[in-house]
Amino acid sequence: MKLEIDGKLTDRPAVWWDSTNAIVRMIDQTKIPFQVEVHNCPTYRETAQAIKKMIIRGAPSIGAAAAYGLAQAVREFWNSDEFESQIKTAYNELLEARPTAVDLQNGLDFICTTEPLEPENALNRAQLFANRIAEEGQKIGQIGKELINTNMNILTHCHTGALALVDHGSALSPIIQAWQDGKRFHVYVDETRPRVQGRMTAWELCQYGINHTVICDSASGFFISQGKVDLIILGADRVTRNGDIANKIGTYNLAVLASRHKIPFYTAFPTSTFDYSTLTGKDIVIEHRDTIEVKQVSGCSQTLNRNHIVSLYTDEVKFSNPAFDVTPSDLITGYITPNGILNKSQLEKTLFNRHSHITKGTK
Amino acid sequence: MKLEIDGKLTDRPAVWWDSTNAIVRMIDQTKIPFQVEVHNCPTYRETAQAIKKMIIRGAPSIGAAAAYGLAQAVREFWNSDEFESQIKTAYNELLEARPTAVDLQNGLDFICTTEPLEPENALNRAQLFANRIAEEGQKIGQIGKELINTNMNILTHCHTGALALVDHGSALSPIIQAWQDGKRFHVYVDETRPRVQGRMTAWELCQYGINHTVICDSASGFFISQGKVDLIILGADRVTRNGDIANKIGTYNLAVLASRHKIPFYTAFPTSTFDYSTLTGKDIVIEHRDTIEVKQVSGCSQTLNRNHIVSLYTDEVKFSNPAFDVTPSDLITGYITPNGILNKSQLEKTLFNRHSHITKGTK
Repeated sequence: MKLEIDGKLTDRPAVWWDSTNAIVRMIDQTKIPFQVEVHNCPTYRETAQAIKKMIIRGAPSIGAAAAYGLAQAVREFWNSDEFESQIKTAYNELLEARPTAVDLQNGLDFICTTEPLEPENALNRAQLFANRIAEEGQKIGQIGKELINTNMNILTHCHTGALALVDHGSALSPIIQAWQDGKRFHVYVDETRPRVQGRMTAWELCQYGINHTVICDSASGFFISQGKVDLIILGADRVTRNGDIANKIGTYNLAVLASRHKIPFYTAFPTSTFDYSTLTGKDIVIEHRDTIEVKQVSGCSQTLNRNHIVSLYTDEVKFSNPAFDVTPSDLITGYITPNGILNKSQLEKTLFNRHSHITKGTK
Repeated sequence: MKLEIDGKLTDRPAVWWDSTNAIVRMIDQTKIPFQVEVHNCPTYRETAQAIKKMIIRGAPSIGAAAAYGLAQAVREFWNSDEFESQIKTAYNELLEARPTAVDLQNGLDFICTTEPLEPENALNRAQLFANRIAEEGQKIGQIGKELINTNMNILTHCHTGALALVDHGSALSPIIQAWQDGKRFHVYVDETRPRVQGRMTAWELCQYGINHTVICDSASGFFISQGKVDLIILGADRVTRNGDIANKIGTYNLAVLASRHKIPFYTAFPTSTFDYSTLTGKDIVIEHRDTIEVKQVSGCSQTLNRNHIVSLYTDEVKFSNPAFDVTPSDLITGYITPNGILNKSQLEKTLFNRHSHITKGTK
């Protein structure tokens, strides 16, 4: 994606290996959209911390960052006598940085299966993993754009653009490609509390000049009930074998509303998001994040002219902050994947085969 | 309600007539929960502005403020040759301050029907109107608390406490009275973007020591789908004759979720919220408020130690801000009113009779 970094327009993915300095670098997503800054991770520990603190976010980008992180550990411990146990420690530290996105585990496993597991190989594999995700984002766009027609109103939730998927995006990819094909439509963008990822979506849509309206998460029902939403497309953080998905909190609310109003409800994701080892959504562990994310919000202060955090509540108030919810497959119209727009019964067969491909590293 | 104003614990309603200074005074709800401040309205114009700017909010409190405002106009123009046209202007200015809450029109009409329409009478009628709402809040609590049992999880939306209903509250009234009876339960509080009225609800629940958890609006589906919500109670800004309700944006989303999961869904409101002149929810004009409410949020800055506004979005982003949505009666389990917990078919008969009562001023 094109980003203005230090005043220069640069083509960068969400995360990359800087071979000159031998570090992992990533766009700091906690600063978007107000500043575009590059965050440096000299070792796998900083990479794990960056995942945990959501400096990098979006399931596929997390997966790529984790793959790079494990490759960093291989470099760091290559000459150590305790190489194996140190790699295991690094693997676990990276894995535990975020629990919901299966991409993370898929990224780590992709590095573990490198043969032989040595620094250059591991790094090449991490780059391969990241590049494939980006290519899949491009393909998801090509395939999914067929669902979009001129004059449509599309609703999306959270951020599923280039930064979330190494490059190109998952749910935003069809929207951007349809627009680039000359179709003219309008996108409702859920603000997506608590972390307001809707501002990243709006920022990305603005870059392409795509018509959009940001709404509060709870306003979706109003627009849907008024007949003003024709299509819902969003991403996924984990897709189980039966087609249930874990995705950003609020996805289930939208799926239930879509079902009542018979609005097509699609999820778009790359192969790395498919969790072939989990049978149904009931088996997914939902991440509960620090409740300070609900209590406080970060925005740009006009008077201070910089990012500033304000507390929305008094100190005695209690909170809960589930970051994801599970949407059962019976509420999902279709799955936009690099292998086509699949229905529930096609999903397992198609993605299971593709996944074995990826973990074996044979293209 | 008991409030600490200027360091002194004082018993105050949401809005009142200060006879010493001959002005309308109200608790500034834009400052709650961080500061408790009294806002002064020397003439009906300031009262209308206070309604418009949500210094006073909550449909019944708005109605009481409007009644006081029109009584102020009667005082101001009593000796004028153009009394009638000036009252008409004041009526319209007050009426247009907020479009959704029918309480506003009911409050104004209650003053208009004063006979004879002279300053002292009008003021007494405004006080009568406000006092009755507060009494009804007390009664709603008494009646509604029967729905609440120990160990229940209750979900509520927006703020429906004492400040919203002159005193005692609508949907919060049963919750508070059940707690005061010794029942022990837990309340999920929707944060209620854009204006985060959930912080007022949380603040009020804290005053009674009621177990609560504030959640993001889009997290309701997660808790409901996990079987963690037994009962939903919320208020109403307008109830039409067929039982449809307009209420804070997000109410419809909750009603649809409750319906799918067969969770009892109740709305609680005083007589002044019943709109006997509107047949169905389709006829309700929904207020779209300034989109800056979505773009920005106001909270307490720890570093500045005062209220501060931050912008969540970059300047080129577009927004929409419907303040209410309509929930059809088939999604509503029951109506908690001062006349009992009614079903849809009982609603019109019971409240229509009661309403005629009120507008005639005969108790």
